Amino acid sequence: MFVLDEVEAAIRDTARGFADEYLAPNALDWDERKHFPIDVLRKAGGLGLGGIYVREDGGGSGLRRLDAVRIFEQLATGCPAIAAYISIHNMATWMIDAYGTDAQRERWLLGLTSMDLLASYALTEPGAGSDAAALTTRAIRDGEDYILDGTKQFISGAGSTDVYVMMVRTGDDASGARGISALIVPADTPGLTVGPNEKKMGWNAQPTRQVILTGARVPVANRLGAEGDGFRIAMHGLNGGRLNIAACSVGGAQAALERTVPYLRERAAFGKPLLDNQALQFRLADMRTSLEAARTLLWRAAAALDAGAPDAVELCAMAKRFGTDAGFEVANQALQLHGGYGYLTEYGLEKIVRDLRVHQILEGTNEIMRVVVARAVVGAS
Amino acid sequence: MFVLDEVEAAIRDTARGFADEYLAPNALDWDERKHFPIDVLRKAGGLGLGGIYVREDGGGSGLRRLDAVRIFEQLATGCPAIAAYISIHNMATWMIDAYGTDAQRERWLLGLTSMDLLASYALTEPGAGSDAAALTTRAIRDGEDYILDGTKQFISGAGSTDVYVMMVRTGDDASGARGISALIVPADTPGLTVGPNEKKMGWNAQPTRQVILTGARVPVANRLGAEGDGFRIAMHGLNGGRLNIAACSVGGAQAALERTVPYLRERAAFGKPLLDNQALQFRLADMRTSLEAARTLLWRAAAALDAGAPDAVELCAMAKRFGTDAGFEVANQALQLHGGYGYLTEYGLEKIVRDLRVHQILEGTNEIMRVVVARAVVGAS
Amino acid sequence: MFVLDEVEAAIRDTARGFADEYLAPNALDWDERKHFPIDVLRKAGGLGLGGIYVREDGGGSGLRRLDAVRIFEQLATGCPAIAAYISIHNMATWMIDAYGTDAQRERWLLGLTSMDLLASYALTEPGAGSDAAALTTRAIRDGEDYILDGTKQFISGAGSTDVYVMMVRTGDDASGARGISALIVPADTPGLTVGPNEKKMGWNAQPTRQVILTGARVPVANRLGAEGDGFRIAMHGLNGGRLNIAACSVGGAQAALERTVPYLRERAAFGKPLLDNQALQFRLADMRTSLEAARTLLWRAAAALDAGAPDAVELCAMAKRFGTDAGFEVANQALQLHGGYGYLTEYGLEKIVRDLRVHQILEGTNEIMRVVVARAVVGAS
Amino acid sequence: MFVLDEVEAAIRDTARGFADEYLAPNALDWDERKHFPIDVLRKAGGLGLGGIYVREDGGGSGLRRLDAVRIFEQLATGCPAIAAYISIHNMATWMIDAYGTDAQRERWLLGLTSMDLLASYALTEPGAGSDAAALTTRAIRDGEDYILDGTKQFISGAGSTDVYVMMVRTGDDASGARGISALIVPADTPGLTVGPNEKKMGWNAQPTRQVILTGARVPVANRLGAEGDGFRIAMHGLNGGRLNIAACSVGGAQAALERTVPYLRERAAFGKPLLDNQALQFRLADMRTSLEAARTLLWRAAAALDAGAPDAVELCAMAKRFGTDAGFEVANQALQLHGGYGYLTEYGLEKIVRDLRVHQILEGTNEIMRVVVARAVVGAS
Repeated sequence: MFVLDEVEAAIRDTARGFADEYLAPNALDWDERKHFPIDVLRKAGGLGLGGIYVREDGGGSGLRRLDAVRIFEQLATGCPAIAAYISIHNMATWMIDAYGTDAQRERWLLGLTSMDLLASYALTEPGAGSDAAALTTRAIRDGEDYILDGTKQFISGAGSTDVYVMMVRTGDDASGARGISALIVPADTPGLTVGPNEKKMGWNAQPTRQVILTGARVPVANRLGAEGDGFRIAMHGLNGGRLNIAACSVGGAQAALERTVPYLRERAAFGKPLLDNQALQFRLADMRTSLEAARTLLWRAAAALDAGAPDAVELCAMAKRFGTDAGFEVANQALQLHGGYGYLTEYGLEKIVRDLRVHQILEGTNEIMRVVVARAVVGAS
Repeated sequence: MFVLDEVEAAIRDTARGFADEYLAPNALDWDERKHFPIDVLRKAGGLGLGGIYVREDGGGSGLRRLDAVRIFEQLATGCPAIAAYISIHNMATWMIDAYGTDAQRERWLLGLTSMDLLASYALTEPGAGSDAAALTTRAIRDGEDYILDGTKQFISGAGSTDVYVMMVRTGDDASGARGISALIVPADTPGLTVGPNEKKMGWNAQPTRQVILTGARVPVANRLGAEGDGFRIAMHGLNGGRLNIAACSVGGAQAALERTVPYLRERAAFGKPLLDNQALQFRLADMRTSLEAARTLLWRAAAALDAGAPDAVELCAMAKRFGTDAGFEVANQALQLHGGYGYLTEYGLEKIVRDLRVHQILEGTNEIMRVVVARAVVGAS
Repeated sequence: MFVLDEVEAAIRDTARGFADEYLAPNALDWDERKHFPIDVLRKAGGLGLGGIYVREDGGGSGLRRLDAVRIFEQLATGCPAIAAYISIHNMATWMIDAYGTDAQRERWLLGLTSMDLLASYALTEPGAGSDAAALTTRAIRDGEDYILDGTKQFISGAGSTDVYVMMVRTGDDASGARGISALIVPADTPGLTVGPNEKKMGWNAQPTRQVILTGARVPVANRLGAEGDGFRIAMHGLNGGRLNIAACSVGGAQAALERTVPYLRERAAFGKPLLDNQALQFRLADMRTSLEAARTLLWRAAAALDAGAPDAVELCAMAKRFGTDAGFEVANQALQLHGGYGYLTEYGLEKIVRDLRVHQILEGTNEIMRVVVARAVVGAS
Repeated sequence: MFVLDEVEAAIRDTARGFADEYLAPNALDWDERKHFPIDVLRKAGGLGLGGIYVREDGGGSGLRRLDAVRIFEQLATGCPAIAAYISIHNMATWMIDAYGTDAQRERWLLGLTSMDLLASYALTEPGAGSDAAALTTRAIRDGEDYILDGTKQFISGAGSTDVYVMMVRTGDDASGARGISALIVPADTPGLTVGPNEKKMGWNAQPTRQVILTGARVPVANRLGAEGDGFRIAMHGLNGGRLNIAACSVGGAQAALERTVPYLRERAAFGKPLLDNQALQFRLADMRTSLEAARTLLWRAAAALDAGAPDAVELCAMAKRFGTDAGFEVANQALQLHGGYGYLTEYGLEKIVRDLRVHQILEGTNEIMRVVVARAVVGAS
């Protein structure tokens, strides 16, 4: 486990191969054009990347979370933004696999695992970032349908994807976390519209939009689990989502580090290669150490999630906080070590820095991670 | 001095007023359109910002370096990229004032201090980032002219400015730092062309281009100082340039901090304003502390430069290293405290982060600053 | 001000001379024997160090806070623990100068400024560390006396000093900060006893004891200011105390840095002097930078206190937080750069680290400093 | 592996039980009296802690390195200094197991694994800290003996232990690493004397002395491996030693964290328990996260060492650097969170900080760890 066996290594190498062939060569172009490469996502689906830890009867790859974090790390070496979208797609797809009825699984999973259909996850709202229990999008029961009104914010893929796993309030205003339900909402539902693609620092290869619901009618049969199960489903899904996004940070930073060594070897200053400067070597050593620590903590948290260990929630939160911070800092150091060229778009470093920046914010900000971890520390003593 | 007197406060407030009126409202637009606002620069010139520490007989404001860093901090609250360009313009203009002949000063200073003419500074080359002594742009004497061949890299303003203060090699290949001379090179010199505007992480409101010299003919009369004085002039100019760029970092970060407090006051999560979270308040306290430390060290280094103190060089290097690091980190924290909105362009935080990032790299990378400071530490004991 | 004038330099050099002659040679011995060197303190008093910013008619030196921080920095290069005790003595003595009646000033100041008499400051209690308003030591009026009952904790010098400036509760239980008064309590007051000398990590050259009050009778005439003024007096005194203690951190760390350079020059590894390692040089550069930033921020805060500037309170808190953190970290790095020898007592590094450690805790912990600074940041926006 | 199975948990719990019963209650006393508790070490031997990863036919426990790091972490919760000594004893004992002849193993292992005999490891010399290849202690062949002359520095246990595994130079002055051999040197060898117990910052429960060799005669039969194998044996042994010492740092810090939560729960300030302060909770969260990252990286490096993985050397170096830094910082934060009480000896926090401080220095300083890691980073790209 700590030392990868042959199967584990093969999985990792396959993901890296895909990243090297399909993502890395195009990442800068997609970023500049704000292009969401659906064709390449289909190819990823063909490799089994659309439902990595979805059961095989649903078309999934039936792998462990431990495999998943290794896959997402490798994908992110090619493009963190696309790897992160695939992570979100997997989280939504897994929710349907884990909480869906046979009919729901049958309706959606084959399409989603093959990535013929693409999914978005819709939890956040304009007025409630990390406070999921405060969401206000209403789902009012009307016969066999819910009628949805409200606005979702920061929805990755929105406008280009086929289906949303969406958290809505089926309870009354005072129902808090217990009033939330999870719905499968097709993108073509009348009354569902999307806002403009947000201009943002990075993650330009995936669109981010508001999703606006105005009397959108969704069958009750599209509900995942019982009424009121939504918050639990969301939280459960987030554990894995946190690991995956942190894995994307580690992978992006790993790519940045891998580019830095040859750069320093080739560039000279003051009569010798930059790489011969001990102070820069020490920094490379600390970057590598930081990434290995983040990577290993991710593995452990993923294994805990696989095992249903009682400390899985806090380990996921720790791995997310540590991994996304380490990833950003290492990538940012790699930029620095490239000097002025690191600031230029064509060298690819600054794009990684911009992409990784948001990982410290989403799937629960790193401040929320501290709240989660603190709860465990305080509760345990 | 530590507590500003009336004149000092008035200078600061004037700069802030200019930033608030002319820079801040347009900064995002200029960034998006990669627009270099020459009209606004002319206005800055009208206020005396084109030659802040140029002598008054050259049209300058005759102020101290201590005043200058306070001015650049304020300008950067509106737009770090434009403030930084004005800093570069001042550095080049000051070189002509300090090292120019009467004829050179007469020819250029009134235009430059009023910013009717804009200046660029051309030291860096593709193969020699921080190693100024290694530059290879040749200036071959031909009668009363030099003939210039070579390429300058990362030249701010190039393509839009009127004149370059350029470092070239008048000595032979082995002449090192002693073979460098400083020339005033008009932008319309035949044989001088510029490359495309570089795509970069930030600083989009000022163009960055290569300057290519192919048999460009410049009169010997345009040389600043004697042959071989160039390196000394460059180093001397850089001391002030380092302070100014660090001041731009402090100012950008100050603006980011100033926006964060009201944001946290207005946003609520878990039933109370974000500002009521003690952990976030502690972070604000550390951000403020870091900025005050950076600001004060800048003042001291500037005063040392004004006084010609023997430790001015290392103080400038320390102030540059500390100020640009602190500025970036504070701005990046401010982005974090805005959550997802900090990642959106329209909130303005990510633009500040992108702009400040390059300050840790230019005017001598922060690694070179450590080399300079270490030399002083080692030499002193 | 930023560049010391002749008088300022002379004051600094005098303090350094005293430290070099009387403190440095004995510091390790005092630490090991837990010896409080009263004879040396008398010598310090002879130099005017007992009442640095006490008015001259009270026997004080009548200097500025700005001079004081420079003096304490220099004293601490010899021994942080003794420098810190002198700081506490100055704080208590200044309180009598600033708030005392003519009679009180006449009775105490000449003895205290000459350090024939030594003072302690007694605020903290076992159950109330940084929460001064919660103190429970009662002073019950009985005719022309107060009768004191309670316990003071962490009292520097207790058992060896002659007089306490003590904060007691003259109001009722619910009186909070407004119920506190400041008393001059002679050490030989019947009913006042001291606990054993606490075993602690460092600061061994000054005793730390509890002071236990059991019906101790103190004349009302010994009260500083009016009833209820105590909290204000304490807070005012603490501003200066914070600066001085931070100055002691900077001085201790400066001494540690000064020893490190020659050590690295003399020791060799892998065939060259340790000092030739660039990575270690970079660390020296960062240590120096950190100290200069701390030092300069201290100067500014002291100047603000001298000027009665409106931001003096938060500047003092920032300077204390930053200076004591920087001091500890630099000293701790210096220990590291000495390798195994840094861990040995005889090299003196570990003693500095142990001494400086408590500066991050006392005169208000650095967490309380963040509360103070945050209040200013939040209030200002 | 990531989630402990029953056997692994039982091993961990046994070690913790020993620490709780025999180490923790006495740790402060041993520190104050500089007492090396040989009786307690014998008890540890009785539990199989004298040869944790020594083969069972030598009386060892035959466990993995992965088990060992978990054991040392638990032991260090009781006393880092004693846990660290047991680590050194294990390293020396393992060298005899791994590289010894049958006769050597038979002569020494049963005594050492039971801790009836105690071992020291003697590599470092006064003039060569981390530069093992530069050692100058000479072993001159004289018939069937070596005659030893030289001085070893910082030898843990010296003066109280029975046998040294000692690195000496059997080659000529220019032989570098290839001229080093490993000898088993009984403590009662004539010509071997020890210096005084060094006064040091911490680790007071184990003596540290010079070992002086003046014509000390040791049979050639006591050599481990061939002449010239010493450096390789030393380096191999250090990999495990680095993991164990880092595990001691994690364990000491874990104990410090475990004490901090109840302390903060019980202490109140400003009308509520300190534990209710969100900023302090966030710090606890970061402390826990840092320790889990260090712990998991240690597990991975140990598993790599168990597996003979090609990246084991650099993983051990990374785990040592990261674990000892994290341990010190967490313990130091725990001290801070105890306020003034953290500085008092009786609360036990400052003792942990003092003990852990040396872990960043020994078994190769953390600077040397960066050299080792950098070599791997540079070589791999």
